[in-house]
Amino acid sequence: MSTNTNAAQFDAVDIIRAKRDGRVLTTEEINWVIAAYTDGTVADYQMAALNMAILLNGMNRQEISTWTSAMIASGERMDFSSLRFPTSDKHSTGGVGDKITLPLAPLVSVFDVAVPQLSGRGLGHTGGTLDKLESIAGWRAALSNDEVMNMLDTVGAVICQAGSGLAPADRKLYALRDVTGTVEAIPLIASSIMSKKIAEGTGSLVLDVKVGSGAFMKNEENARELARTMVDLGKDAGVHTVALLTNMETPLGLTIGNALEVRESVEVLAGGGPADVVDLTVALAVEMLQGAGKDVDDAEVRAALSDGRAMDKWRAMIAGQGGDNDAPLPVAQEQHVITAQASGTLTKLDAYGVGVASWRLGAGRARKEDPVQAGAGIELHAKPGDTVTAGQPLMTLHTDTPERFARAIEIAETAAVIEDTNAFEAPKLIIDRIS
Amino acid sequence: MSTNTNAAQFDAVDIIRAKRDGRVLTTEEINWVIAAYTDGTVADYQMAALNMAILLNGMNRQEISTWTSAMIASGERMDFSSLRFPTSDKHSTGGVGDKITLPLAPLVSVFDVAVPQLSGRGLGHTGGTLDKLESIAGWRAALSNDEVMNMLDTVGAVICQAGSGLAPADRKLYALRDVTGTVEAIPLIASSIMSKKIAEGTGSLVLDVKVGSGAFMKNEENARELARTMVDLGKDAGVHTVALLTNMETPLGLTIGNALEVRESVEVLAGGGPADVVDLTVALAVEMLQGAGKDVDDAEVRAALSDGRAMDKWRAMIAGQGGDNDAPLPVAQEQHVITAQASGTLTKLDAYGVGVASWRLGAGRARKEDPVQAGAGIELHAKPGDTVTAGQPLMTLHTDTPERFARAIEIAETAAVIEDTNAFEAPKLIIDRIS
Repeated sequence: MSTNTNAAQFDAVDIIRAKRDGRVLTTEEINWVIAAYTDGTVADYQMAALNMAILLNGMNRQEISTWTSAMIASGERMDFSSLRFPTSDKHSTGGVGDKITLPLAPLVSVFDVAVPQLSGRGLGHTGGTLDKLESIAGWRAALSNDEVMNMLDTVGAVICQAGSGLAPADRKLYALRDVTGTVEAIPLIASSIMSKKIAEGTGSLVLDVKVGSGAFMKNEENARELARTMVDLGKDAGVHTVALLTNMETPLGLTIGNALEVRESVEVLAGGGPADVVDLTVALAVEMLQGAGKDVDDAEVRAALSDGRAMDKWRAMIAGQGGDNDAPLPVAQEQHVITAQASGTLTKLDAYGVGVASWRLGAGRARKEDPVQAGAGIELHAKPGDTVTAGQPLMTLHTDTPERFARAIEIAETAAVIEDTNAFEAPKLIIDRIS
Repeated sequence: MSTNTNAAQFDAVDIIRAKRDGRVLTTEEINWVIAAYTDGTVADYQMAALNMAILLNGMNRQEISTWTSAMIASGERMDFSSLRFPTSDKHSTGGVGDKITLPLAPLVSVFDVAVPQLSGRGLGHTGGTLDKLESIAGWRAALSNDEVMNMLDTVGAVICQAGSGLAPADRKLYALRDVTGTVEAIPLIASSIMSKKIAEGTGSLVLDVKVGSGAFMKNEENARELARTMVDLGKDAGVHTVALLTNMETPLGLTIGNALEVRESVEVLAGGGPADVVDLTVALAVEMLQGAGKDVDDAEVRAALSDGRAMDKWRAMIAGQGGDNDAPLPVAQEQHVITAQASGTLTKLDAYGVGVASWRLGAGRARKEDPVQAGAGIELHAKPGDTVTAGQPLMTLHTDTPERFARAIEIAETAAVIEDTNAFEAPKLIIDRIS
């Protein structure tokens, strides 16, 4: 029996039961439960039950918006209004070989739009953006707020670790969801991403929502719902927000790993690199610039890659965080080449399989406290649509710990499908734009 | 990404996700998760998420049966096979004024069927059965297993605290469900009740599943599902099990409270007492006796109440646990009478309202560690169907702490509905029998 008689008080069990029974939570209930969870009044086991009820029964737009605001209110907010440039940021839901942030941040800053790219460290097939950059000798992920402001004012771009003061409720909640089977709730994913991005204080935001085997969202319908939910949240918070739905059935580019992806990013900044990485980087840059009020087109953005302006920004950005642009990147101690088992057309290179193989080689982590190998990962020598001959190299696996090869090879070999066909049609890289 | 490659290992998150996604859990998964929760490998927050997924997505008969067996296997089992009598037990899902266990246990033992009534202490409108009996001077709830066996061998009936060795997984799980809004899951309710009753080792079991405002199950459909689930579980475990669905829209008898209910129970054992209490006691006794293979009918059972044989058993049972049969029962220090506000027929006396009022007077507890007042509670002076005159007493409220009157009166007054009608039809006390 409930002992609640004072309407101004809330009780965790009442709120859990309300969502369990499919009721809409009030603004006051959501504000209370997030604040009470952050300060420990609501226990982990209560929030776990509430999360599962949210996952199974959903939240409406108003509830998700309130939930996000409550997580923002749990911590500090950054303020970039004193900068001489408008700000624009990008968030990717994560994919295999997704190194786009690395060339994108300096590229956008060429056009006098500041890019405050504050990242976390997730669990994934490869390390996160910070792990990739840490393969550069001397580079530091942890900056003070003053250092972040200084980087944005002088260089115009910064990629660093998000301060622990931003949305602490989200940090606590994310760790809990990870161990309670409640990561996959769209309202919780959307509010987790957006609370951090809104608290970070960016004026404009572009979301890269990945769809496919190597993405968190395996099907387009869910990806579209997540994108729509996040765009709505951005709008509700006064942040100009656009989402691109992009293909993640195949890895992006030709490298998966930490140092390997830095190397490919530098190739893109030097005016080269794989077409899919360049195309997606340019498309996202145009969106980020337009979101910040700059009318810059595709050709102008490509010019900044080919004429060295983006590379200059990159070198300044890396050096500004202590990185040595001229130090050689780490290389793994051992390599193993997987060859084509037949001749024909490579019709599939499954992003999930390649991602797991890379992770097994040591490029990603199983637990938050695990280290990653800077040199580990996979280089691809063919992409879907390419004609291959039996015996030619398909991919090279890299690791410092060769005992990892067996399990990585096992899955990498099944990721590539070669068929005797000419009927290959390349899927669209950018599936849709949601604004 | 899951790191599971060894099929013999289980992971809490995989099991949570399976149930979240509506999959049937295997025997091995259930056995593992219950054992791992009992020993602390699975955390409270993980079990809370799993419980919510079970509440919302259900379990099939096989899963519930396995879940129950796993909880039994988490602790010790009692064995009554050495007794000279067969055993039969009763469990009620709880209701307002439900003191039936008190007259029932000694009544059944009259016919050479032993009644091992092992109870817990729940949260409820009034205290549990043990709280009621503790209003008898000297009576002890905590007995050793040897004392329990001795009581059953000599007296033939015992009502005592269940040992902490029976189904410890259930104890831990119940405490968690209580604070995570997951009490109401029928598979979890059924397995919780039945794991303790099966571990207790009774040969036959009668379930009193209450339906109505004062019961845990407010509607007949849910009550029927719970009854059916428990009867199936009993059958699966080889325990002869029958359930009666009984009405709990109106309090049972004329007293609600601890000492007040003992007084009424003694009236029933003396051959008197309210008709509904007598009728239900007799019906349950007949079921318990038939379940234990005794062909005793309604009239023979009633005779044991009117001729003093049941009273003799009661006195032996109370004395055997240290109770003083002749000591006066505690009486509350303050009384307040609620009178009829109109003349007419009392058409409703809402069990929930009377229960809450009694609880507010101090008869029940809000938290497990709270004490109960032995004398607190409510005496009813009219029951639905009775003709009443404006100003006549409807109920007397009892408490040792008169500051509690205001909030108790507030709800008690709204529990009674008086209408100017002759069209009152008494609802059936026993709604159905499920075997």
